Amino acid sequence: MRVVVVGGGAAGMAAASRAKRLLGDGGEVVVFERGRWVSFAPCGTPYYIGCRVGSLDDLVYYSVEFFRRERGIDVRLGVEVVEVDVGGSRLRFRGPGGEGWFEYDVLVLATGARARVPGAWREFLGYENFFVLRGLDDAERIRRFVVRDDVRRVVVVGAGYVGFEVAENLRLLGRRVSVVEMMPQVLPLMLDEDVAGEVAGLLEKHGVELRLGVGVRGFEVEGGRVRGAVLADGSFLEADAFIIGVGVAPETGLAESAGLRIGETGAVWVDERLRTSVDNVYAAGDVAETVDLVTGRRVWVPLATVANKMGFVAGTNAAGGEAYFPGTVRTSVTGAFGTVVAATGLTEREAVKLGYDIEAVRVESRTRAHYVEGGGRKVLLKVVADSSTGRLLGAQAVGDDTAFWRVNVVAALLASKATVWDLFAVDIGYMPLVAPVWDPLIVAARLLMRRLGTAPRR
Amino acid sequence: MRVVVVGGGAAGMAAASRAKRLLGDGGEVVVFERGRWVSFAPCGTPYYIGCRVGSLDDLVYYSVEFFRRERGIDVRLGVEVVEVDVGGSRLRFRGPGGEGWFEYDVLVLATGARARVPGAWREFLGYENFFVLRGLDDAERIRRFVVRDDVRRVVVVGAGYVGFEVAENLRLLGRRVSVVEMMPQVLPLMLDEDVAGEVAGLLEKHGVELRLGVGVRGFEVEGGRVRGAVLADGSFLEADAFIIGVGVAPETGLAESAGLRIGETGAVWVDERLRTSVDNVYAAGDVAETVDLVTGRRVWVPLATVANKMGFVAGTNAAGGEAYFPGTVRTSVTGAFGTVVAATGLTEREAVKLGYDIEAVRVESRTRAHYVEGGGRKVLLKVVADSSTGRLLGAQAVGDDTAFWRVNVVAALLASKATVWDLFAVDIGYMPLVAPVWDPLIVAARLLMRRLGTAPRR
Repeated sequence: MRVVVVGGGAAGMAAASRAKRLLGDGGEVVVFERGRWVSFAPCGTPYYIGCRVGSLDDLVYYSVEFFRRERGIDVRLGVEVVEVDVGGSRLRFRGPGGEGWFEYDVLVLATGARARVPGAWREFLGYENFFVLRGLDDAERIRRFVVRDDVRRVVVVGAGYVGFEVAENLRLLGRRVSVVEMMPQVLPLMLDEDVAGEVAGLLEKHGVELRLGVGVRGFEVEGGRVRGAVLADGSFLEADAFIIGVGVAPETGLAESAGLRIGETGAVWVDERLRTSVDNVYAAGDVAETVDLVTGRRVWVPLATVANKMGFVAGTNAAGGEAYFPGTVRTSVTGAFGTVVAATGLTEREAVKLGYDIEAVRVESRTRAHYVEGGGRKVLLKVVADSSTGRLLGAQAVGDDTAFWRVNVVAALLASKATVWDLFAVDIGYMPLVAPVWDPLIVAARLLMRRLGTAPRR
Repeated sequence: MRVVVVGGGAAGMAAASRAKRLLGDGGEVVVFERGRWVSFAPCGTPYYIGCRVGSLDDLVYYSVEFFRRERGIDVRLGVEVVEVDVGGSRLRFRGPGGEGWFEYDVLVLATGARARVPGAWREFLGYENFFVLRGLDDAERIRRFVVRDDVRRVVVVGAGYVGFEVAENLRLLGRRVSVVEMMPQVLPLMLDEDVAGEVAGLLEKHGVELRLGVGVRGFEVEGGRVRGAVLADGSFLEADAFIIGVGVAPETGLAESAGLRIGETGAVWVDERLRTSVDNVYAAGDVAETVDLVTGRRVWVPLATVANKMGFVAGTNAAGGEAYFPGTVRTSVTGAFGTVVAATGLTEREAVKLGYDIEAVRVESRTRAHYVEGGGRKVLLKVVADSSTGRLLGAQAVGDDTAFWRVNVVAALLASKATVWDLFAVDIGYMPLVAPVWDPLIVAARLLMRRLGTAPRR
């Protein structure tokens, strides 16, 4: 029995580890990774750029040697899989030692996602001061460049997670930072505009220049370097370095050429057991799509948490087990300058667009009892519910770490189709040093009940 | 329409506020409180004793004037209700202005709980250095005494929440503190012995002397003061002050004399709408019992969170609304010396005692990605599940604030009878600065699945 995994990121190594644990000596697990890292943390790259993480090795959870020796997994670095012959259950690889065909019993595709770069901008990637940030090697190039004394000003294109976290880290390095975002708000895939407004204020307070609601028309080159960005409003942003963070796309090339079904989201279609349209081929992590547990729709959610769980499930099934990945409520979190921003489920805007009849409430609260530590920090919580059924649809929060955790509590509720009455009933603990006695979550439930004209139900 | 509330604590004022909001000008809401405070926070008293809260007024959420003027509630301080005539829908009160009868349409009993003191120890309450801690006046007496320079050593009897938090605060004041607990562990109603061991280590590290598994036989008096405690093992603990924190009991005197049904827990029996055995009499807060959502059994849970929600529900019903209080999973939290201790649902010991066939796992983890801030702080998480059904039964955690929040996530799951598979699927967010990518909650789910011999299910 041979399980082959393509891609050594979070999903790939979770799948490989799980498959090998279940197979033991009764099976072989091989990982092909075209880069030089496995089990790495792309989420940590902004902090590497900001010099808050010392070396790239720190961003690796387990070394290749660990997987080889401790887990008995045959990891092959620098080897690219260039073709999958699903009929013949074999793949063609190309690496330092040449190329060849390799047979498998079960294949797990975990090729991940790549940074999106509009076609017209690709030519600029050849310049030394123009970057995308996806992998560890990108982070190394960026850090080596931006720590130079003559790099004073940086333009970040895109105010998603990457742009957001990179902007913070460059600012902490003392650089002048402008963030350009085509949408009229920061974190447009994650937050409603009102909550995003709070976050924008935070960035501006810390000296990040925001240019929202304006696209980048192009870039100007001078003296072998990109000199500036031309914005859609005609203005020109001169800078010493440019970092593009306008989103990611699933790395489906291999899957497509192998004839695997691609889902409506553009990622590889999988069933609940993460099987692709071919029986002995699974897909996991950023290359695969999944199900949104709030709407029941198929979605593409390229996040590490989802990738790890998908890897665990795909690895179980690849080794002959029976495991299911039910889906996600798309919980996400980011932060900057000591403030955490988190969201789960649908935003108000998404819910309205999907046709839900909604109520949304905002609660501003302190995180501690009023009489200790000045009441703690402020937290802003927004909760969205379906006004016809009372069902919770999503939440967003901005504040300290507890913003993140309040969102996690809603995430735990969303999967069970919980209602505003369930939210009222959630037995959040209390003591003065850790929470206010009426937690903002419960206050939100009360406000929602008032809007819905109901009292607490069974 | 006249709603009368007996007791101005959390439940009473929540009920009064809610009833008055619903009734508006169409009804009168009167609160009788025998003490001099309403809307106070007994949970804050240890921090008042430790001088971390300046004045007793700080422990009051809203003033009497606020309730009177802003909420239109007729609050009568220093007035004790001495008898309820449920047949005649009237009560007899006694206050500064004399005594009399007062009629009601609906009554809400929120008389709370009192500190338990074994009968043989009551005589010592007359001495100036022997205390119980329940209300704000107790806290004032204790603080006034223990801040004296000649008070060097304090014995705290009982290692429940009160003993635990008082011990911390006295230690921070520089006092020598001994805690005597009859049970062989700290926080015996909240934690399993293994988790309690971690907490005991924390107390000892900060110089609190623990005498566990030994009862107090009595106290010795000398020169008009209690001089020391005689323990069951014959040892003698001399001290300058003694604080008794051996639990609380529901203040059911009024309910009993009125002939209301007392439940199996010893607190006032109520239905899901918090109606007592008499139609127009509700009970809420520490005086009433409720339902444990994990076991379905009736329980008595004298906690502020539960009291507030019960007050809200009872107030709604008292004003003619229809509201339900489904019950509690008994989430509780305490802490000392910067470490938070939280629990929800059943401990392993409780679950075994109730006949569940259980698995329990412990996860020790860091609270951040390993490559930032040294991985954050340590957190210990214990999760208990039913091994025949996979249903979650409870969780305990010790660590930073995230210990509390991880327990809250389990609390959110417990009410919906969630399983270890649901726990695996909970979409906890991730970014390096706020959590590890495999959250200890998900790791616990994985360990439980391994013990149960299953993979993730739908």
